[in-house]
Amino acid sequence: MTTPASAILLAECPDQAGLIAKVTDFVANNNGNIIDLEQHVDSDDKHFFMRVEWQLDNFKIPREQLQQVFAEQVATPLKMNWQIAFSDVKPRLAIFVSQHGHCLFDILARYQSGEWHVEIPLIISNHRDYESLANNAGIPFYHLPINAANKQQQEKAQLDLLAEHKIDSIVLARYMQILSKDFIEHYPHQIINIHHSFLPAFPGAKPYHSAHERGVKIIGATSHYVTTELDAGPIIEQDIVRIRHNDNIEDLKRKGQDNEKIVLSRAIRHHLQHEILVYKNRCIVFV
Amino acid sequence: MTTPASAILLAECPDQAGLIAKVTDFVANNNGNIIDLEQHVDSDDKHFFMRVEWQLDNFKIPREQLQQVFAEQVATPLKMNWQIAFSDVKPRLAIFVSQHGHCLFDILARYQSGEWHVEIPLIISNHRDYESLANNAGIPFYHLPINAANKQQQEKAQLDLLAEHKIDSIVLARYMQILSKDFIEHYPHQIINIHHSFLPAFPGAKPYHSAHERGVKIIGATSHYVTTELDAGPIIEQDIVRIRHNDNIEDLKRKGQDNEKIVLSRAIRHHLQHEILVYKNRCIVFV
Amino acid sequence: MTTPASAILLAECPDQAGLIAKVTDFVANNNGNIIDLEQHVDSDDKHFFMRVEWQLDNFKIPREQLQQVFAEQVATPLKMNWQIAFSDVKPRLAIFVSQHGHCLFDILARYQSGEWHVEIPLIISNHRDYESLANNAGIPFYHLPINAANKQQQEKAQLDLLAEHKIDSIVLARYMQILSKDFIEHYPHQIINIHHSFLPAFPGAKPYHSAHERGVKIIGATSHYVTTELDAGPIIEQDIVRIRHNDNIEDLKRKGQDNEKIVLSRAIRHHLQHEILVYKNRCIVFV
Amino acid sequence: MTTPASAILLAECPDQAGLIAKVTDFVANNNGNIIDLEQHVDSDDKHFFMRVEWQLDNFKIPREQLQQVFAEQVATPLKMNWQIAFSDVKPRLAIFVSQHGHCLFDILARYQSGEWHVEIPLIISNHRDYESLANNAGIPFYHLPINAANKQQQEKAQLDLLAEHKIDSIVLARYMQILSKDFIEHYPHQIINIHHSFLPAFPGAKPYHSAHERGVKIIGATSHYVTTELDAGPIIEQDIVRIRHNDNIEDLKRKGQDNEKIVLSRAIRHHLQHEILVYKNRCIVFV
Repeated sequence: MTTPASAILLAECPDQAGLIAKVTDFVANNNGNIIDLEQHVDSDDKHFFMRVEWQLDNFKIPREQLQQVFAEQVATPLKMNWQIAFSDVKPRLAIFVSQHGHCLFDILARYQSGEWHVEIPLIISNHRDYESLANNAGIPFYHLPINAANKQQQEKAQLDLLAEHKIDSIVLARYMQILSKDFIEHYPHQIINIHHSFLPAFPGAKPYHSAHERGVKIIGATSHYVTTELDAGPIIEQDIVRIRHNDNIEDLKRKGQDNEKIVLSRAIRHHLQHEILVYKNRCIVFV
Repeated sequence: MTTPASAILLAECPDQAGLIAKVTDFVANNNGNIIDLEQHVDSDDKHFFMRVEWQLDNFKIPREQLQQVFAEQVATPLKMNWQIAFSDVKPRLAIFVSQHGHCLFDILARYQSGEWHVEIPLIISNHRDYESLANNAGIPFYHLPINAANKQQQEKAQLDLLAEHKIDSIVLARYMQILSKDFIEHYPHQIINIHHSFLPAFPGAKPYHSAHERGVKIIGATSHYVTTELDAGPIIEQDIVRIRHNDNIEDLKRKGQDNEKIVLSRAIRHHLQHEILVYKNRCIVFV
Repeated sequence: MTTPASAILLAECPDQAGLIAKVTDFVANNNGNIIDLEQHVDSDDKHFFMRVEWQLDNFKIPREQLQQVFAEQVATPLKMNWQIAFSDVKPRLAIFVSQHGHCLFDILARYQSGEWHVEIPLIISNHRDYESLANNAGIPFYHLPINAANKQQQEKAQLDLLAEHKIDSIVLARYMQILSKDFIEHYPHQIINIHHSFLPAFPGAKPYHSAHERGVKIIGATSHYVTTELDAGPIIEQDIVRIRHNDNIEDLKRKGQDNEKIVLSRAIRHHLQHEILVYKNRCIVFV
Repeated sequence: MTTPASAILLAECPDQAGLIAKVTDFVANNNGNIIDLEQHVDSDDKHFFMRVEWQLDNFKIPREQLQQVFAEQVATPLKMNWQIAFSDVKPRLAIFVSQHGHCLFDILARYQSGEWHVEIPLIISNHRDYESLANNAGIPFYHLPINAANKQQQEKAQLDLLAEHKIDSIVLARYMQILSKDFIEHYPHQIINIHHSFLPAFPGAKPYHSAHERGVKIIGATSHYVTTELDAGPIIEQDIVRIRHNDNIEDLKRKGQDNEKIVLSRAIRHHLQHEILVYKNRCIVFV
């Protein structure tokens, strides 16, 4: 894309009068052209949420000073939590995978077709199943098998690889190892998982077995940020598939996997487009 | 409808060879014309499920002997659990409601337009909110307010009314009282509830508040048979509605209520059409 | 609701820099508190669309002068098409119905439960089927049968009734008469129809028959503003229902009718909440 | 799979009494164990449709005589249209693709993971974009560019390749050439296409542009068998995606492509599992 670069502000603060005008004035007075603005007030929490994107081509404040100026003039007086990203900076994503490949295949198809504005510098796996797939896509593949004895040491190796490749965010594309608290805290709200159920229903292992046993009529998939509490992080995206009375567990897995890959891909896209604000363990997704 | 009467068999038993042929032979050899047959084998449980409907107009076995003959010739040798219903017998349904009327309005609209093959001889409520609605529809309305002190006595009054009106099944159309174990056992798999969440997520009270707090992207509704374990009975039907980041709890309720009434009406229809088999706390719904 | 009154601006114009700031400044400089703002730019058409809602309790411009001041200071210089509505003014809606009552039942249930901010002063029908339903709801019912000979005269009678009851908008709740060009031009973008197919597929009569014959796997419903070209007006809302291979035309009608009433009710709500902008025969629905 | 081989009968004929019993007796009397049976009567057309699958391990009639015996004993007397397939025979599929790769990527992911019981011996394209993708998957790739002058000759080359590789069925995975009548008649109801709209809405080229211009709220995808009338063949599967007022044509394409690949993959699966009966240009899909 040859679209001119834009700045993307995500911000939240307690609600008060005039918030939108203060932000849009800041942009307009500095010659920025707003191309997208979404906001809303959570009327239950009396809290304000906003995403604004403006073009930088005639913007008066240089990019390297923007954060500081915005903080002084707008954010600090209003007690905002906020971040500003730039549309021409490609996020760098690592993919973790184990032995179910449907999400990885889907991610690589999108990557190779240029659907996302992203770099994927490496794939990490505790198995060798997808080594040649990674090779064919031209992405370095690191095999780091994990067991109870070597887990701490292998996580250290993973973190070194991530640092070396300057990784911003991690996608767990059906990675079947539980990450340690220490690992998770290196990437707060930057690790995206796909869980194969409609959370909070059926957390933990084998959700399709649980769904079959409970006799639900619909199965789901949930993509969320990983936090230290298992399967309880803020939800980015969910969707469902209807099932029939004659579907067995294998059918549930098959139908569910199509849903998983679509849900995960939407969550990744929201993350890459800076459309997500996390507040009180909830994701506000501006779409 | 002037459709000729038909018999509807619902049956389940451990799987074995030749089950379908034994049943279809029984029907064909007695001059019945099968108009619908659904069956499946749960390959995980090795269990067989079947629904067969055949026309009775030239059927050789008289209706009043059918159950006994079928038991002797087919069901008992095959160790089937089974039931036979007749399409020209109108099930008699009681509606219980409290103060949310959206499901009741929807049920009465269907009843008055003749959508269902059913009689609704009475409506029971612990409030007076829908008394005139019931009167307008020409259905007797009984106001039985319930508190901790009078619960046992009022349930007795309800059971008497149900017996007097020869009620087959009960629909809890957002009835906000928990039925006693004793009451439930009078109507095993004959009490249909609508719960305003995607069970097993968010059982109990205030599921829309819980959904908002957890930040889910989809809300659901679940219709199930009432068992003595709260919100844990066999699920008949579920469906969902997508919500947006700017929906507050009131929006969730409003969107959810449209879903609730549709889900409940589908469950009632399946029940009235004898399309549901309960097995191991799961509903096999033949559709 | 005791929510304070708010003003709702809907506006569209060719895109240019600074549009949002100009509008939000107008509001903020006059002491209005914006409670909701949605905007977007159609990047294919280079056109700007906006909906802003602000509270009026401390707003400096008196309500009766607001339209003129906004025109002078904002809209005219920017060549906007626009309208301003007030949240405390109840729109007045007439319902037209023929012999299918599912949408009417649903509308009356919402009306009686207070779900919508609306007055419904009359129901008009070319049949008597729902006269007692209207009476029970306490809404005047006018029976105006229509045939080729009296059509012009009866439309005149309808228009007189609508004028007399100060009607703002009309809902065709499965009204099976084609309105004349003259009638339609009295209520531009104020007549809401429900068509029982996924337009532009299956326009005209008997869409469920056509859907069955074509063997589609999904049936739809479309709510749109009525224009002089049949079934071709701007679409407000659509939704679908999956069907099965064993559904006959009656099943399609039954499943479709549940969809119709939900789709129509969503369209009515968008209309009543002033969430719809019509541009080039398309509805921009701000949700 | 080590599942024992089974025979799959698809049959249709005018409805009459005893049809099911005649078929199930034929199977049971020859020692076959029915593992799946679906049937229904189209009450509008008075026509009977059936799919039966039975295990062959103790079946008395040898596989090579089955078709003849079934014809004599059952099908011919009942005037059935029918076919019998065997579950252990892998269908051989050719993939045609042009320059949109999302469906091809998805098909190859499923092929490589063993999700389908199928052989894919070749990929044919009028462009070279996916040559290396085919190579990586180990599937022969044939580049046959097509223009007005060479179309007849290239179709001849395609047909030769298909014959040489003993191809049963063809998938057009967004293949942007219109096949000739002659080509289509070589593979009646064996060519599966994916069209990027909810047919019959928006046939022909650029359906996403048409959808945007019409302002629909939902976009669809349709997989159908190719017949000589463009985009009018029997529909196998359809699904939809909701769009928002701020989606431009690029967004429609992106959201639509995820839908296309899922819809096409479901259609392919139904075809491979012998779940589809074509009758009067409609597909009866037994699921």
